[in-house]
Amino acid sequence: MPSRRSPDALRALVEAYLGELAFTPELGGLEAVVRYPLESGGKRIRPVLCLAVAEAAGAEPEDCLPAAAALELVHTFSLVHDDLPALDDDDERRGRPSAHVAFGEGVALLAGDALLAEAFRLALSYPSPAVGRELATATLGMIGGQYRDVTGDTTDLAALHRLKTGCLFAAAVGLGLHVAGVPEREQAPWRAFGDELGLLFQIVDDVLDGDGYAIRHGEEGARALADEAAARAQELLAAIPADTAVLAEIVGGLATRTA
Amino acid sequence: MPSRRSPDALRALVEAYLGELAFTPELGGLEAVVRYPLESGGKRIRPVLCLAVAEAAGAEPEDCLPAAAALELVHTFSLVHDDLPALDDDDERRGRPSAHVAFGEGVALLAGDALLAEAFRLALSYPSPAVGRELATATLGMIGGQYRDVTGDTTDLAALHRLKTGCLFAAAVGLGLHVAGVPEREQAPWRAFGDELGLLFQIVDDVLDGDGYAIRHGEEGARALADEAAARAQELLAAIPADTAVLAEIVGGLATRTA
Repeated sequence: MPSRRSPDALRALVEAYLGELAFTPELGGLEAVVRYPLESGGKRIRPVLCLAVAEAAGAEPEDCLPAAAALELVHTFSLVHDDLPALDDDDERRGRPSAHVAFGEGVALLAGDALLAEAFRLALSYPSPAVGRELATATLGMIGGQYRDVTGDTTDLAALHRLKTGCLFAAAVGLGLHVAGVPEREQAPWRAFGDELGLLFQIVDDVLDGDGYAIRHGEEGARALADEAAARAQELLAAIPADTAVLAEIVGGLATRTA
Repeated sequence: MPSRRSPDALRALVEAYLGELAFTPELGGLEAVVRYPLESGGKRIRPVLCLAVAEAAGAEPEDCLPAAAALELVHTFSLVHDDLPALDDDDERRGRPSAHVAFGEGVALLAGDALLAEAFRLALSYPSPAVGRELATATLGMIGGQYRDVTGDTTDLAALHRLKTGCLFAAAVGLGLHVAGVPEREQAPWRAFGDELGLLFQIVDDVLDGDGYAIRHGEEGARALADEAAARAQELLAAIPADTAVLAEIVGGLATRTA
């Protein structure tokens, strides 16, 4: 068995890549605003998952870095726009002033737009359009989820989260598979794993924040649902004919995280 | 000489395509908000130019419709976000309430995001990533121009407009060339034509609005600059070994437009 890099090692790869990422020079002074929310020390769960899937499926994680970074840029774009007064009106993000508090609303709006466009520029650095297509589909699903959230269409909480959170987790897996060249007909079990992981992430998030699933099912009920999603994710992994030890470690980390 | 479709005929193609465009189902109720600014009857100058370039360079305009529509979606996304209170705070657009007045700020913000992501989805429907790459570069340049505008960095007016307006005109030409399969080494004269056309459009826009070039150079001075740009565009066209009659008609239309 070839050695696999740990989630921490993959995260270090992501951080280094994002830190040195060259943005479009025409952005001028907006580049500093674009870097600000990207450098605020998120957990990088999506890009780490992306790299781990790529490596488990036979690719070099380094070859997957542009796709993984594109995904983190889409996630960051959504946070910058979500924090704006027109949406969630959050003044803080990860212990620092939100982008619009630090730079003004108009500039933060443009920085979010730039993050999304830069994400596609990165995705389009691959010779095949498959990476960009996966990213576009996921981004549009996520935006559809945000729309449901904003308009209070929360009757189907599972459907809302499958869009708002699940789409980017699904894309993390899908992008890793595309970069590794896994044919479509072999992708289903990997993608089913990604769906369970997105659900697991969301339920644990709600338990930690005391909302969503934790309100609907109580804390213990939500924990039980999270454990079930984690168990299904591990079962799906075990059935994939590849070395998925690092992915199993990521499932364990998500199930037991406390922040 | 094969017959070429008139600018009006190309515009009808664009309108029909945009009217029937299938958006991502996951957008749900946001689709109506996305369609609203797209159906407000703009001049469709950029997509018409794109189709005309594609046809002059030997492609069927129909094959260029997804790329041309993608460009119009990027233009529309920029209008929806520009109209928001955080930027220009315009309550009206083309005689109707702006998207945020009609649907609320948060929803309009998400609709702009969705327009941008749908633009890339369309651009990524081509087998080559070249179309999407051209679109990403142009979008990022345009955002850089908006940033200069918002922050009052208007010392170099020509540079600002080259970004804010010129990038999408350049992309209109570039996308048409990609769809027609014109090799990079033969693209330079076409692209030089696109640059002059973007400048012409902007100067005439400023004359009609009484700002920018009209303030800097006076109305007569600005008209003279527009005529020079139109003349250079026609000269460049005349030197291209293709039937560029429709493109010449577009130049004439832009130079003499009154709205």
